[in-house]
Amino acid sequence: MKKSLIALAILSTAAHAEEGMWMPQQLPQVAKQLKAAGLKLDPATLTKLTEFPMGAIVSLGGCSASFVSPQGLVATNHHCVYDSVAHNSTAANDLLTNGFLARTLAEEVPAKPGSRVFVTKEVLNVSDRIITPEVAKLAGKARSDAIEKNQKALQSACEKDEGHRCTVSSFYGGLEFYQIKQLEIRDVRLVHAPPSGVGKFGGDTDNWMWPRHTGDYGFYRAYVSKDGKAADYSKDNVPYLPKHHLKLAREGVKEGDFVMALGYPGRTNRHRLPSEVAFTFDWNYPNYVKATGDNLAIIERETKDDRDTALKYAAQVANNNNYYKNRQGMLDSYAGSDFLARKTREHEELKAWVNGDAKRQREFAAAITRVEQLIAKRDADVKRDFELNYSQPRLLNAARLMLRLANESQKPDAERKAGYQTRDLPRLKASIAALARSYDEKVDKALVMHHLQKYAAQPQAEHNANWDAAVGVAAGMPAAELKAAMDRLYAGSKLGDAAAREAWLDRKPEDFKASGDSFIKAAVAMYDIALKEEAEEEELAGNLQQAYSSYMKAKMAHMKSKGQAVYPDANGTLRVTFGNITGRPWGADGTAWTAFTTVKGVAAKATGTGEFNAPKAQLDAIKAKDFGHYVDPKLKSVPVNYLATLDITGGNSGSAALNAKGEFIGLAFDGTLDSIISDWDYNKANTRSIQVDLRYMLWNMRHVDKADNLLREMGAE
Amino acid sequence: MKKSLIALAILSTAAHAEEGMWMPQQLPQVAKQLKAAGLKLDPATLTKLTEFPMGAIVSLGGCSASFVSPQGLVATNHHCVYDSVAHNSTAANDLLTNGFLARTLAEEVPAKPGSRVFVTKEVLNVSDRIITPEVAKLAGKARSDAIEKNQKALQSACEKDEGHRCTVSSFYGGLEFYQIKQLEIRDVRLVHAPPSGVGKFGGDTDNWMWPRHTGDYGFYRAYVSKDGKAADYSKDNVPYLPKHHLKLAREGVKEGDFVMALGYPGRTNRHRLPSEVAFTFDWNYPNYVKATGDNLAIIERETKDDRDTALKYAAQVANNNNYYKNRQGMLDSYAGSDFLARKTREHEELKAWVNGDAKRQREFAAAITRVEQLIAKRDADVKRDFELNYSQPRLLNAARLMLRLANESQKPDAERKAGYQTRDLPRLKASIAALARSYDEKVDKALVMHHLQKYAAQPQAEHNANWDAAVGVAAGMPAAELKAAMDRLYAGSKLGDAAAREAWLDRKPEDFKASGDSFIKAAVAMYDIALKEEAEEEELAGNLQQAYSSYMKAKMAHMKSKGQAVYPDANGTLRVTFGNITGRPWGADGTAWTAFTTVKGVAAKATGTGEFNAPKAQLDAIKAKDFGHYVDPKLKSVPVNYLATLDITGGNSGSAALNAKGEFIGLAFDGTLDSIISDWDYNKANTRSIQVDLRYMLWNMRHVDKADNLLREMGAE
Repeated sequence: MKKSLIALAILSTAAHAEEGMWMPQQLPQVAKQLKAAGLKLDPATLTKLTEFPMGAIVSLGGCSASFVSPQGLVATNHHCVYDSVAHNSTAANDLLTNGFLARTLAEEVPAKPGSRVFVTKEVLNVSDRIITPEVAKLAGKARSDAIEKNQKALQSACEKDEGHRCTVSSFYGGLEFYQIKQLEIRDVRLVHAPPSGVGKFGGDTDNWMWPRHTGDYGFYRAYVSKDGKAADYSKDNVPYLPKHHLKLAREGVKEGDFVMALGYPGRTNRHRLPSEVAFTFDWNYPNYVKATGDNLAIIERETKDDRDTALKYAAQVANNNNYYKNRQGMLDSYAGSDFLARKTREHEELKAWVNGDAKRQREFAAAITRVEQLIAKRDADVKRDFELNYSQPRLLNAARLMLRLANESQKPDAERKAGYQTRDLPRLKASIAALARSYDEKVDKALVMHHLQKYAAQPQAEHNANWDAAVGVAAGMPAAELKAAMDRLYAGSKLGDAAAREAWLDRKPEDFKASGDSFIKAAVAMYDIALKEEAEEEELAGNLQQAYSSYMKAKMAHMKSKGQAVYPDANGTLRVTFGNITGRPWGADGTAWTAFTTVKGVAAKATGTGEFNAPKAQLDAIKAKDFGHYVDPKLKSVPVNYLATLDITGGNSGSAALNAKGEFIGLAFDGTLDSIISDWDYNKANTRSIQVDLRYMLWNMRHVDKADNLLREMGAE
Repeated sequence: MKKSLIALAILSTAAHAEEGMWMPQQLPQVAKQLKAAGLKLDPATLTKLTEFPMGAIVSLGGCSASFVSPQGLVATNHHCVYDSVAHNSTAANDLLTNGFLARTLAEEVPAKPGSRVFVTKEVLNVSDRIITPEVAKLAGKARSDAIEKNQKALQSACEKDEGHRCTVSSFYGGLEFYQIKQLEIRDVRLVHAPPSGVGKFGGDTDNWMWPRHTGDYGFYRAYVSKDGKAADYSKDNVPYLPKHHLKLAREGVKEGDFVMALGYPGRTNRHRLPSEVAFTFDWNYPNYVKATGDNLAIIERETKDDRDTALKYAAQVANNNNYYKNRQGMLDSYAGSDFLARKTREHEELKAWVNGDAKRQREFAAAITRVEQLIAKRDADVKRDFELNYSQPRLLNAARLMLRLANESQKPDAERKAGYQTRDLPRLKASIAALARSYDEKVDKALVMHHLQKYAAQPQAEHNANWDAAVGVAAGMPAAELKAAMDRLYAGSKLGDAAAREAWLDRKPEDFKASGDSFIKAAVAMYDIALKEEAEEEELAGNLQQAYSSYMKAKMAHMKSKGQAVYPDANGTLRVTFGNITGRPWGADGTAWTAFTTVKGVAAKATGTGEFNAPKAQLDAIKAKDFGHYVDPKLKSVPVNYLATLDITGGNSGSAALNAKGEFIGLAFDGTLDSIISDWDYNKANTRSIQVDLRYMLWNMRHVDKADNLLREMGAE
């Protein structure tokens, strides 16, 4: 088994109108296109990370967000605050269903443990300090280790500035590295989320779909200590006062308007090798879709009569449903496309171009062959360990994580494995603490048993002997025996108790070795061989980094030789995408998409139950046309969502959408199913992002949820 | 209780582009508009009923159709042959589900008893022979009787031409009468219907909706005796050889193309009085929707474990679902409209115009007041008898019909009540025969009991004493007693047996009087008072005809004074509507409608079950892109349905759609839910008709159902 590989393949692609997740410093390069699209600001303004408006843009780690008041109020998507709403929900006080509104600071509640607001302060090119001349000579694990060592050293130096988190990220396939320094606010509180009947209206049925009517917004607040420093939660903390916050647009948007989204897109893979495309679309995604579908059915079955357990798994279900539909959507697009053939042709062209010149051939040809071999090895490993990874009891994973932490903690901080350093402790502890609100033994065992039977059916050669021995299973073992082994494992552990579990965070390696707890024992038993497996993975990773960056260098040179400009693929760092608000000439067969939906459509879709359970108060307001000044003059109704030609992906969720003057006009929250293959193969004609219109947020907050305190704070008219 | 009133209110309205169900002889009046829309034929061609193409257009009585081969092959909608498919279906041989294809003439099966193909031969204006100077002086029942007498005399004379059916229809609100002479082909056989997964794809969910993917086509064949005369079914009969049949278009249609539909629209009500609008939309339709919804639920409950009985009620369920959605759709449009206010304003304008001139006031003022009073009386009667009409056991209705027939048959034919003459015998007998395949006692009693309880709850003054006495119920009677009365009634009759039932068709009045059968006894008991009730209805009908035609004369004069041209409202006679193929800028909130759907959408909607159960062979052909030459070059797929600005209504179902050259390009089969209020209030912006594209019919017949024999016969390439 293995953790997901280090994010090496951060790639680049050609820039076309509306395509492009631009690094802020690149925007002056596309000043002409920005002006043509309608931007009224000087593009240079957007390059200054601590000035307006970029200074108002933050990351939640996985989602994007922005400050929308001088008191640290943070606007993001409902689905980005969903886990925190679920965390604060119980069967008796179901905030997911009813929504949540703090009318005063005192009513605000802590977000889910581990929640963060990251404010980017500085971005530095540190390529030469990561791939030093010495590192450039290394291969395999030595190279991996050296890169990690340099990364850690830079991060550690940078994080001397207390309350900050520094990350060294790879760009352009490992050719360049940037150090990103962020203020890490760790007292994050839930301020407001509309009922799921608004914030998740349409549920999984409408997810990735148009027409859309989802009020996908919610609010956090960032808190710091009285002296303005990032701090753990304390009732004495005070709201963070950001230097900049977004101003609400005074005028509603309309079709054709300029729009840009500022946020932290997670990952795109637009220039992968053809073998990676084939593996992903012909093997990995289909298997992921099958496994996720199975898991969703199992969770539904196991929680159907137990609202409290269902709430514990609500976040996982939402996440699984989301990715299930996403991957299936990409597979559907892939099935009807020439993507792989085109990719293969482009790769052959690249090789021909490399081989057409002796110097290029010397520099790149071997690396390209090598990267293909390494990818084949990696893919074989992923296949082998696919069911095994799904067969892990979550408490065994927790035990292994805590044992590793105990062992790493014996070393000086700088020598500890990345991910287990002092700086990582809060995140690790939060992940253990979160189990209390997201774990149920019955559900966990059902999931494990399902996949364990598939794993057991694999031939001996594809088994992990270390794991098999530790938990007492074997290839070919009948289901009843597998179940008996798991029953023993679960029954022999006290880790199901939160206090007992969390106590292990402070224990020493010898405590682990002496323990009779079944999960702890299994973790100890596996430890040494797992370290060797990790070393093998790092050997592969180091070699891949070396070959892949060389391949990418060839690819970029080839693209530049054809006059194609380059922007880096998404890698979770701050980006800007711009375009226009517009519909699409085709939608579902027999329809086209118009740019806006309205509350008329909410009323039309509302069923009073399930995924389309719009609140009665909202439906009454729609029926009474109680629209105030949020009505659009042309639509004659309150706009709900709108389409735009923005190039976004996962991670952009919650990105502020700004108009030509840099004013806040809504939140990006989704793409459409037939365009999400753009994560791999950008489709200019199909691609549309979906935003929630600021007017819908404000209308619903004023006319339905009566969130007048927040409207005042944001300066809403 | 009463039968539905004679269709008096046949109204007229102003002509706008694309609005208008034109009588063929009127087309030269709109020659300019026809040319502008794109017609390549001389409009005068279309006025000749026995020439091409009008000679190929036929009525099925309730549906429209057309000859599409020289051997009397008739193309119409699947939902127009649905009853015949159901009639020939059994649980063991479920033609509804599997479809039906006769590969030879010998494999063709008789359509449902009573099925007809009517070929219009002649249309004569007979106004002066119906409203003679003598009739013009009459009022009340005397006027009703005189009109009926004149109608019967004309019809009788006309029908001397054996095998023909002649009808005198009222136009322009009873101002004009036309005699329509039709060849009545009564040996009609089912030739082909695709599986319901094609012909009814989308079911009630998609009915009245866009985007639409319904293959709503089916085929009958008209048979006549060897000497070419209309005849009852006989194995010696031969296919009817029509003088003209439609030719298949060689080129597919595209957006913007001219299109016309030729058929028999049933009824529009575009210039009713405001009081009629209020009664219909505020009382009658809401109550109809409630009652029909209840009945559908009862039928589903009573037949859910009994496929054979479910098949018996399949046609009623389809019909009820259709009208349920239709009426509810109109109510939804009405709720958001200013229709009644506008209507009231127009009516006040008319009255002001009438009263603004002494001569007009003398001629019309009293009639307008009178018509308003008579309508109020009629509406009160409808309200009173609403639940009573739903409380009728079908076998009691059958008994009453056969008793009336026995009594009328004692008189010379010309003196018999209209509807019970010799000419009506086949239809009456067929309606009795059809009970064998559409009646189930358990279901019938459940429906009756549901409404009988509502009827029993009405005050004594709103009860029908005659009926109450005959079946043994009373106002305020508890449910258990009502049930006991119905149990006695059903148990005391042998009419549930088809042979016993049909034997009564040949019996004499004295046989009825002597019978101990409970339904026959009830029919006899009610007979005399029912005749008196009928006379009262005829008194009202005669007065209404007189006042309404006068009101309409005023209204038409008023319209003409404003320069508005006039065409008669639909009344089940042959009409032509023309327009263009085009989408619509708005559909469901957030979407627009494009003009065509394709088989891509069939595959996208297919669920493998229920209403979206596209046959596997079809889905395979779609997946394999086995499209032959039926692919549309722009859509790159096979078109399924298309939208057009045609003015159609119920009765137009199965109407041939023709291109600018008069070639066959598909079949009209539906409108869209938000435009069907056009039956009352024409909405130029919203109104679109839905057609099945000829290319989809041919593709499905060739590539899926292998109906090569029919394709050859139609001359398909």
